[in-house]
Amino acid sequence: MNIINSLTGMIDLIDNSSNKEEIANKIFFTEKILKKTFENFHFYEIRTPALEDTDLFKRSVGDTSDIVNKELYSFQDKNEKSITLRPEGTASVIRSIIEKKLDGDPQKLWYLGPMWRYERPQKGRYRQFNQAGVEILGYEEGMSELELISMVCCINKEFKIESPVIKINHLGSNETKNNFCKALVKYLSPMKESLNEKDLSRLSKNPLRILDTKDSKIQTILKKGPQISDYLSEESLNMLKLIKKTFSNDCEIIIDHNLVRGLDYYSGFVFEAISPNLGAQDAYLGGGRYDNLCKQLGGKDLPAIGMAIGIERLALISNIFKNDKTLVSFIIISSNLEQKAYKIAHDIRMMNSEIEINVQLSDGSLKSKLRRANKDKSSYAIIVGDEELQTDTVILKSLSDKEFKQKTLDLKELKQFITNLE
Amino acid sequence: MNIINSLTGMIDLIDNSSNKEEIANKIFFTEKILKKTFENFHFYEIRTPALEDTDLFKRSVGDTSDIVNKELYSFQDKNEKSITLRPEGTASVIRSIIEKKLDGDPQKLWYLGPMWRYERPQKGRYRQFNQAGVEILGYEEGMSELELISMVCCINKEFKIESPVIKINHLGSNETKNNFCKALVKYLSPMKESLNEKDLSRLSKNPLRILDTKDSKIQTILKKGPQISDYLSEESLNMLKLIKKTFSNDCEIIIDHNLVRGLDYYSGFVFEAISPNLGAQDAYLGGGRYDNLCKQLGGKDLPAIGMAIGIERLALISNIFKNDKTLVSFIIISSNLEQKAYKIAHDIRMMNSEIEINVQLSDGSLKSKLRRANKDKSSYAIIVGDEELQTDTVILKSLSDKEFKQKTLDLKELKQFITNLE
Repeated sequence: MNIINSLTGMIDLIDNSSNKEEIANKIFFTEKILKKTFENFHFYEIRTPALEDTDLFKRSVGDTSDIVNKELYSFQDKNEKSITLRPEGTASVIRSIIEKKLDGDPQKLWYLGPMWRYERPQKGRYRQFNQAGVEILGYEEGMSELELISMVCCINKEFKIESPVIKINHLGSNETKNNFCKALVKYLSPMKESLNEKDLSRLSKNPLRILDTKDSKIQTILKKGPQISDYLSEESLNMLKLIKKTFSNDCEIIIDHNLVRGLDYYSGFVFEAISPNLGAQDAYLGGGRYDNLCKQLGGKDLPAIGMAIGIERLALISNIFKNDKTLVSFIIISSNLEQKAYKIAHDIRMMNSEIEINVQLSDGSLKSKLRRANKDKSSYAIIVGDEELQTDTVILKSLSDKEFKQKTLDLKELKQFITNLE
Repeated sequence: MNIINSLTGMIDLIDNSSNKEEIANKIFFTEKILKKTFENFHFYEIRTPALEDTDLFKRSVGDTSDIVNKELYSFQDKNEKSITLRPEGTASVIRSIIEKKLDGDPQKLWYLGPMWRYERPQKGRYRQFNQAGVEILGYEEGMSELELISMVCCINKEFKIESPVIKINHLGSNETKNNFCKALVKYLSPMKESLNEKDLSRLSKNPLRILDTKDSKIQTILKKGPQISDYLSEESLNMLKLIKKTFSNDCEIIIDHNLVRGLDYYSGFVFEAISPNLGAQDAYLGGGRYDNLCKQLGGKDLPAIGMAIGIERLALISNIFKNDKTLVSFIIISSNLEQKAYKIAHDIRMMNSEIEINVQLSDGSLKSKLRRANKDKSSYAIIVGDEELQTDTVILKSLSDKEFKQKTLDLKELKQFITNLE
């Protein structure tokens, strides 16, 4: 019979804790540490549905962005309405806040979950991937910028990122953006023949994104053109200096006036954390201020700043590993009284819910089961055979401490031992 | 401007830890405790994509089930292929195991995540909901049945479920099932006019599911008809007795020969945990053996047993609450040196990544900020004003211990205090 395969660009993650280099293992552990960090900053979790009205992303992420132009995972539902698997988290968070009429209240929120983009699959890029993010809502420029970069530093520290670098920039107010864009268009228009197709389309639709060009020829042209720094207010430039001053003990902060983000809704302060170990696409997290988005989606005038973190990318450059709890392997070597032996395992599990007990369910010799226990990095093995079952005892063996002599314990002593385990 | 709403039957969950009764809070906490339980049983996480080839569910969950007949959230992708948002977890797990050629190895796996069914929305039923599950693969009937029910008992204990009840049944081998179904059809055929439309359709397509009828008239008719217990082998009946004997200290075990599960792939031992606090649909978890599924999907002959847990339903009847970590409120009362004050918060966060520090970002009086800190159930407030900034000190106030006198600490003493906090 033919088998059914997973869909293009959709991968299965299966943990295998005995191989700590396994990517699934790293992704799951990365999520755990991120959640802890968000909670330690006293942010609250928000979880929005996977599916949204397609209009949400057209009106927020922007018609000129690659995401909306080419990558939306959209389809018609049974009522012929266009719906989309979310390509990112911020638009849904703001949609939710408006719908629940929470757009008047300051909030510090985090989310984590799968996102979808209908991309051509390539190495390290999947149609379903995982993203986490935080949004600080209801605060004007100031302390919330500090709060976000403080969190980035804590993430870099938690994951032991090598030589951490944060790039920062300021896109100014809407007025600044407009003035700068006009100057940029004026400067580039006579040089249209030097622009590639993508940048030419940006020039008419969203000139700011040209700063993001990967074309080194255009990069050289841009260097001689108008610079956003010349259009920024004293206040905006001071914000960049303030961030640099506050966090440069913790990581390298680079002011990069060509940093613009891929989504249309950013304005004001923007940033990215990058790693040379990620190749050409070197950012593993990024974000910025988006004061206009809430109003644009029909809500109140809500100042906002946030960031998104690529879980797979962060997992790739993370230098920490899961520190397993004490594992006890429970080995039954009994021809016909398995249930009685199993009950011992059940009873100690019910007693102490903090330790990890692996009851080996397979048939097999004591030798093969001990080999398995060692492979799993068990600290102890508890062995129950016919003789032990008759005398209501078990054998306790340490697998990590060679000085530890094998002991026979009665059930009371076993319970004592389990209670005292961490 | 018009606002964009969430889609029908798709809800947003926003945590609000200061209200422990909030359902989002309970769902998130339920997931955390379930994950801990799965890990303590030494099961490994598996995460499959949200989307699958529609054929997967037609071939596994079954053409006659309500899920496949009416509730699949399916659509055409850009290549006109029918794809489906997974309605349950088991089919994807087996698809993944076959695809990765792991269908020869014994495994103990768990999953947790969103599932989708295109149902008419009604109270407590959503089109996107959360489900966890475990699958024990590669073991014949025996210890793995004990392992699953042991886990159900641990879950009941962890969540402090009131008067826990587990219903168990055995559907026998394929042969038993066939013989019993033939007898059932023979018995019911002359009474066709008493059957409702749904049960009539079951009679021709999947007679076993008639045992699941909600119609009390048919229930009475069934009582006088053939019973599956008369068709079961001694061995199958003994398995039910063994489960009852092993776990009846921990919860009430009811042998219910009318228990059949909603999915077509079950055979052998089946079970459900129920709670009177859930109303008519009283099961919050259930599962059973499904030895034929792997082969049916094109894989090897792989014995298997598993269960699924409804997160929302378990959260509703859970009697445990999140025990928050020590929370420190960081309050800045400074007109112009916010950055210097913020840096103190950043530095203590970088020092101790185990405590929760809430930097209050809003403007406002000391009084309103302390009110906020009390509302958040902070244990301590650290207060920094202009005077403290000039002398490099902070004020430490306990919000939980009335005996504790407010203190002024220099930065070294503050670091000492934070390091010693749990």
